[in-house]
Amino acid sequence: MVVVSFPDPVLRDAVGEVPGVEAVLWDPAGDETPDGRIEVVVAPYLGAASALGSVAQLPDLRLVQLQSAGFDGVLEVVPEQVAVANAAGVYDAATAELTVGMVLASLRGIPDAVRSGDEARWVPLGTRTSLADRRVLVVGYGSVGRAIAVRLSTFEVSLTAVASRARAGDEIVDTVHGIDELERLLPEHDVVIVIVPLNDATHHLVDDAFLSTMPDGALLVNVARGPVADTDALVAHAGRLSLALDVTDPEPLPDGHPLWTAPGVLITPHAGGNTTALLPRMSALLRDQLTRLAAGDAPHHLVRDDVKT
Amino acid sequence: MVVVSFPDPVLRDAVGEVPGVEAVLWDPAGDETPDGRIEVVVAPYLGAASALGSVAQLPDLRLVQLQSAGFDGVLEVVPEQVAVANAAGVYDAATAELTVGMVLASLRGIPDAVRSGDEARWVPLGTRTSLADRRVLVVGYGSVGRAIAVRLSTFEVSLTAVASRARAGDEIVDTVHGIDELERLLPEHDVVIVIVPLNDATHHLVDDAFLSTMPDGALLVNVARGPVADTDALVAHAGRLSLALDVTDPEPLPDGHPLWTAPGVLITPHAGGNTTALLPRMSALLRDQLTRLAAGDAPHHLVRDDVKT
Repeated sequence: MVVVSFPDPVLRDAVGEVPGVEAVLWDPAGDETPDGRIEVVVAPYLGAASALGSVAQLPDLRLVQLQSAGFDGVLEVVPEQVAVANAAGVYDAATAELTVGMVLASLRGIPDAVRSGDEARWVPLGTRTSLADRRVLVVGYGSVGRAIAVRLSTFEVSLTAVASRARAGDEIVDTVHGIDELERLLPEHDVVIVIVPLNDATHHLVDDAFLSTMPDGALLVNVARGPVADTDALVAHAGRLSLALDVTDPEPLPDGHPLWTAPGVLITPHAGGNTTALLPRMSALLRDQLTRLAAGDAPHHLVRDDVKT
Repeated sequence: MVVVSFPDPVLRDAVGEVPGVEAVLWDPAGDETPDGRIEVVVAPYLGAASALGSVAQLPDLRLVQLQSAGFDGVLEVVPEQVAVANAAGVYDAATAELTVGMVLASLRGIPDAVRSGDEARWVPLGTRTSLADRRVLVVGYGSVGRAIAVRLSTFEVSLTAVASRARAGDEIVDTVHGIDELERLLPEHDVVIVIVPLNDATHHLVDDAFLSTMPDGALLVNVARGPVADTDALVAHAGRLSLALDVTDPEPLPDGHPLWTAPGVLITPHAGGNTTALLPRMSALLRDQLTRLAAGDAPHHLVRDDVKT
């Protein structure tokens, strides 16, 4: 039997029985002594990096399974002989649909309708920009970027994808352009959706030069991480461009920050992933991982591979 | 040469030259004497029914081409030997994308984010309902209903379609259910999108009984016509259900009407069709129709057929 710890009973129950797997409860952030037989730790949803130092007391541990896609700070605290897997794909549907919702809300004037409605007044929206016929650039073509492109592909748009390196396309885009082509591509697009991982190369990718290259009236969408955009540059270009931001820098955006009152800006409070879509997808991923481990197969989604898995 | 009148130069120029067709300008709502050679009248975008009585003075008229999908009141004023065609399909993309935008905005809390943003405050949205995994019922599976279903099909939903009569499915839905199955289907769906034509059979289709059959927390979307829903019933069920309404009854919805302040209601002011998508699609339809007429073929989209076309 592979002994696996879950941080909470809701997730354990959602995963259900897996043949060859014994489930125990243990919160790495708490001060309970864990079952010494634990071989797999499912990390808590929030605060994994600060909680996971406690796994060092588990002699038979071979895998830490994160509930997040990101793993900042985790590899530093998990013993080096232990493998770490992330929850790639689990957030795709929720993040992609919010992205499409923000694009449509921004283009079609839903925020203005909300405001008129709150005043109990019927105010025609006039002729708005349709998503149909727009040239959409998806900057970052990983798992979430592709999920966004799949959803946009039925909206009569033309789609262009950019990733860190150029590569062949798929059934959605003819080709994936390299990030070095970005300057050439930006002026030719009406909607630019940024969904890159945050790292040294993407910090402040969306700066004054990036935004200056976008045509008047275009829409910038940041569903990546706040520091991928330079906030001062966003404030400076708001109005000439429309902005839809699910992430900000700093985050939470302080009350009264100038970005709140800049024109043409729709902000959602980092709401991309927290939906009812999460539990079924997370439990399906865990069920698959545990089934593989019980069968002696290597787990998926390893962000640090290791001899013991 | 087939002589065709356009109500405005913008539309004429968007259509451009069509071999075998001579374009003239004439607004049927104005008091100018029309060119007596006109065989095809393109109706004005708004107020066609009240304007088109003037076409009786055209001896060679054989087709009135509407710019709307609906044709209420038109057949009564156009001489009976003249064919009438509508602009079916022209509004599909714009209406379908607004529908998806309203669904996503309602489910994911975008109106709440707009309100917090207007107060310059970061207020987490909590766990919202994803569109992914929802059971979506599209009531009305004509041109726009199908365009909505096509767009929703990539969002990891289960889709059910209902039309006035049961028929075989397509690449989006396995089968199209008849409206007689509605009472059985409503309790099994989380999102119900109404996009039926308004007629005697659909007037107040969405009444207290309809809404009572929907499960708690479900979302009703009306993108059809206001009188398809009973407004008092909508107000009564708001809160238990979420509502997203692009049309109301009466319309415009009067300032201060109770529907404005009912809980969980998102209203857009009949904004489904008025976008940048309209002109290219309208002009493509007209180009196609005029090309057919110049070639001696029957036009498409006839709502009243006639011997002369």
